[in-house]
Amino acid sequence: MEIKIVRKILEANDFAALKIREHLREKHQRMINFMSAPGAGKTAFLEKLIPVLLKHELKVGVIEGDITTTCDADRLKPLGIPVVQINTEFFGGDCHLTANTVFGALKEFEDIRLNIILLENVGNLVCPAEFDTGSDLNIVLWSVTEGEDKPLKYPLMFQKANWVLITKVDLQDAVKADIKLMYENLRKINPSLKIFEISSKTNFNIGKLAQEIVNTN
Amino acid sequence: MEIKIVRKILEANDFAALKIREHLREKHQRMINFMSAPGAGKTAFLEKLIPVLLKHELKVGVIEGDITTTCDADRLKPLGIPVVQINTEFFGGDCHLTANTVFGALKEFEDIRLNIILLENVGNLVCPAEFDTGSDLNIVLWSVTEGEDKPLKYPLMFQKANWVLITKVDLQDAVKADIKLMYENLRKINPSLKIFEISSKTNFNIGKLAQEIVNTN
Repeated sequence: MEIKIVRKILEANDFAALKIREHLREKHQRMINFMSAPGAGKTAFLEKLIPVLLKHELKVGVIEGDITTTCDADRLKPLGIPVVQINTEFFGGDCHLTANTVFGALKEFEDIRLNIILLENVGNLVCPAEFDTGSDLNIVLWSVTEGEDKPLKYPLMFQKANWVLITKVDLQDAVKADIKLMYENLRKINPSLKIFEISSKTNFNIGKLAQEIVNTN
Repeated sequence: MEIKIVRKILEANDFAALKIREHLREKHQRMINFMSAPGAGKTAFLEKLIPVLLKHELKVGVIEGDITTTCDADRLKPLGIPVVQINTEFFGGDCHLTANTVFGALKEFEDIRLNIILLENVGNLVCPAEFDTGSDLNIVLWSVTEGEDKPLKYPLMFQKANWVLITKVDLQDAVKADIKLMYENLRKINPSLKIFEISSKTNFNIGKLAQEIVNTN
């Protein structure tokens, strides 16, 4: 019984994701879904990425997904771009963003000309992977502090990813991370992944990532 | 409609958790539920904690919860204690342990005399907090690398916790973690928390934690 209803929820989500893609195509907008475990550095990366995208003359909007609080949205305020907060506590405390809630947030951008929308999902390596947000690109952030086994233990997340950003590489020595093994485990789960190493603290590869995002736009 | 069924699932879980508590009381066993975000150091902590508990003459068993793989169980093999693996992929890919699956795992210990069972939940700061595992103690691990805002953003997890272990304190300087702010945010969400700082890498406070666990046994 429960399984049937879960399937209905996922089917409804896929339908809403389809509608989002139509909506984005009509408006000539792209959307990127950023997913990761809590604390892998999604917001820190956006704080560094967005100013570079703005220099590239992209009009950027952000949708922030959290269970509660506007902590992350508040951090992006100084950038002066439109930010919409989704708090899933008003949708049953969901541990992920659904396409329906994202669609609602997109409507807040109705009268704003944007080229690209950055969607920061709830920090969780499991459930967000199950819900298509209608984005054009799924980027998963994975910190060197989390251990090399994460793609093996959370395979769906890394299968749904198009790109993986190995974050906090400035801590590589301090945590004795085996980056070669991180790549191997990523390739094992998803051989077609595009993989980047970044550090938002030292700005390592932030410019390169921004350029890649501009190129795919 | 969905909400009703979700409530039924949670009610069924509470009933199974009650049964687990009866079972543990009958067997004079205690169970501790370890929860955290992926990569906060649950397994690393168990690798260090268990040998100290064994020196204290406790008979220790472990239940490992993962979506897939036996990565963590394999790491504990050298300790020579009984370990049962739950892979939630056989239960719909759940992002958390339910009391029913834990009860099933406990039955594997039926003929073994144990004093204490350590339950390593799925790495996830959201959903495991919603499902009572029938444990006597909830311990949440939170790494200094994850950012100081986590209790505010994932309040239920920290409200359900009895103890919080601030992990990887050896990295405190490297990540410029504000431990005072971590304490403040924890107290804001749950003033009755017992808070410890540990490092499994340097063994900092591992002996103290083991003693605390022995004392509560």
